[in-house]
Amino acid sequence: MPGILEVYRDLLPVTENTPLLSLHEGSTPLIHAPRLSEELGIELHLKFEGLNPTGSFKDRGMVMAVAKAIEDGAQSVICASTGNTSAAAAAYASRAGLRCVVLVPDGNIAMGKLAQALMYGAELVAVRGNFDEALNLVRDIADHEPIVLVNSVNPYRLEGQKTAAFEICDVLGEAPDILALPVGNAGNISAYHKGFREYCQLGKIPALPRLWGIQAEGAAPLARGLDRVENPETVATAIRIGAPASAHLARAAVADTSGLFDMVSDDELLSAYLRLAREGVFCEPASAAGVAGLIKLHAQGRLERGQRVVAVVTGNGLKDPGTALKAVGIEPQAVDATLDAVKRVLWG
Amino acid sequence: MPGILEVYRDLLPVTENTPLLSLHEGSTPLIHAPRLSEELGIELHLKFEGLNPTGSFKDRGMVMAVAKAIEDGAQSVICASTGNTSAAAAAYASRAGLRCVVLVPDGNIAMGKLAQALMYGAELVAVRGNFDEALNLVRDIADHEPIVLVNSVNPYRLEGQKTAAFEICDVLGEAPDILALPVGNAGNISAYHKGFREYCQLGKIPALPRLWGIQAEGAAPLARGLDRVENPETVATAIRIGAPASAHLARAAVADTSGLFDMVSDDELLSAYLRLAREGVFCEPASAAGVAGLIKLHAQGRLERGQRVVAVVTGNGLKDPGTALKAVGIEPQAVDATLDAVKRVLWG
Repeated sequence: MPGILEVYRDLLPVTENTPLLSLHEGSTPLIHAPRLSEELGIELHLKFEGLNPTGSFKDRGMVMAVAKAIEDGAQSVICASTGNTSAAAAAYASRAGLRCVVLVPDGNIAMGKLAQALMYGAELVAVRGNFDEALNLVRDIADHEPIVLVNSVNPYRLEGQKTAAFEICDVLGEAPDILALPVGNAGNISAYHKGFREYCQLGKIPALPRLWGIQAEGAAPLARGLDRVENPETVATAIRIGAPASAHLARAAVADTSGLFDMVSDDELLSAYLRLAREGVFCEPASAAGVAGLIKLHAQGRLERGQRVVAVVTGNGLKDPGTALKAVGIEPQAVDATLDAVKRVLWG
Repeated sequence: MPGILEVYRDLLPVTENTPLLSLHEGSTPLIHAPRLSEELGIELHLKFEGLNPTGSFKDRGMVMAVAKAIEDGAQSVICASTGNTSAAAAAYASRAGLRCVVLVPDGNIAMGKLAQALMYGAELVAVRGNFDEALNLVRDIADHEPIVLVNSVNPYRLEGQKTAAFEICDVLGEAPDILALPVGNAGNISAYHKGFREYCQLGKIPALPRLWGIQAEGAAPLARGLDRVENPETVATAIRIGAPASAHLARAAVADTSGLFDMVSDDELLSAYLRLAREGVFCEPASAAGVAGLIKLHAQGRLERGQRVVAVVTGNGLKDPGTALKAVGIEPQAVDATLDAVKRVLWG
């Protein structure tokens, strides 16, 4: 499949001057989850965004943002990031021959994601401060220098991301009853809402799915009805955000679709993370939040039987092998290279 | 897209009793590489197999092998592996509810790949020996116990893998002039040959592409015209194999297509690995061998201008972030969180 700018050009801010930049992002699989479906009494599909080119859903928004930056004559892009955003920005900037600068909070970046950004040729600057300080700096720099900000405050990011909603409807032939997904900075739930809303207006779907936004308990301002939580903490680093930038859009998305916000503990997250792997989908810890929420709401009797549900699985588990090894907690047993020794381990 | 068993069922050993097992493997992108194309004077496309569900081309063969194991009534599968094979075997076995046993040489497995196999639920047994000893053990066990061997000696593996050749022809509308790819155990080049040969017999392509099999200098028996090399050594662990299991098929593939074997140094491999990332494709070190070979053969005047070439990029770079960080060799500079400090780093 071509990339999203080509597939959905009529529904995106693509002009005749917009380069059709692409690493063949999008067209990610919608994977049926038979065992979880059975257990939850629903028809569950997993939208596995970890199979995008840089391993997360961020590629959709970033290809749009970088293409528009090129159209506007930019030669450099900048973002603050501790992870997936930096990989996506670096990949598309490098592809297009642009300079990419990434500010990272010093000492707070996962090795897999750091490796990606550097391999794709980003210039990393570690700042002695937290993410909020890094974000303030890049906003300030982008305001005063000829360099385009590609954090999610860039409106083209949500435009690109909404294509995931289009794909789900195109594959299912209709919208699901419920879309469950992780909520951190709240851009993705807002983008899905925009996508479903546009498909509804075009008459491609009769109604919007209910949007269920799931946060981690330690970083759950929306689920708790707060503007922000201080010192957010969760094993799911990709959604460890205390003051979501798109909170207002996310609240509108939930209100407009009769959806909900809820939250799950780190134990519930890691349990869902393992369950997903046993269905054959190895994702980031944060990516399991949607499924963790479904399991919790089912246990509370709040998940109606027979619903068609899509859970968005936002990133690839290979981004964070360290958490995976901790979650399984198994050291392989070493035995002698003899038939007897191996058979004894396997069959006692 | 559905998985390969459904898309290519008429060209695979799929019977009415074969379960259409799938994690939506295959349909991987064929990504045009504009800068490398320009430099090499060819039209170069990258078949990025790292976007398969477990991050490597092994998923194609494994879904076929596990589906046939289920059809034959098996409840367990076994393999010896230091990497991608174990992840693929574990994912499909877990998906299908089978037990999966993986023998690994003790102390010789990359963390990313180990994390995958464990998350997908494989039982890992580390044996005090090398890969050859582990392989002999699993062959012996599969001969005497009710457990199916899914190493590449399982003939269904090549059947599944040949579908990558079909996809390339289906997307290009014809076969390329040259297909360049890494050669380790030599199963993949043999599978591509089988796929192109079958499409030719069906009249879907008029002729076969020349197959260029590229080995790492420290593990290059085919390029050197030897049966085996002792103590193979290369940074590209996925092709660090001294005695390729499918050597006879690979030699036939090269002879039949007027192709060639060649080899590249670790420096040439790592250079191509970085070049690929700058085109937006972050792969495993071994996966860059095809492109490294093209760069070398171009420098020797052996790559004719204007050819349409596909290089197979076999696995995802996130499998091995450690090598990536070594290859870029950059430590981010830490600066104070002030505008002046950041601007000084960026613009001097």
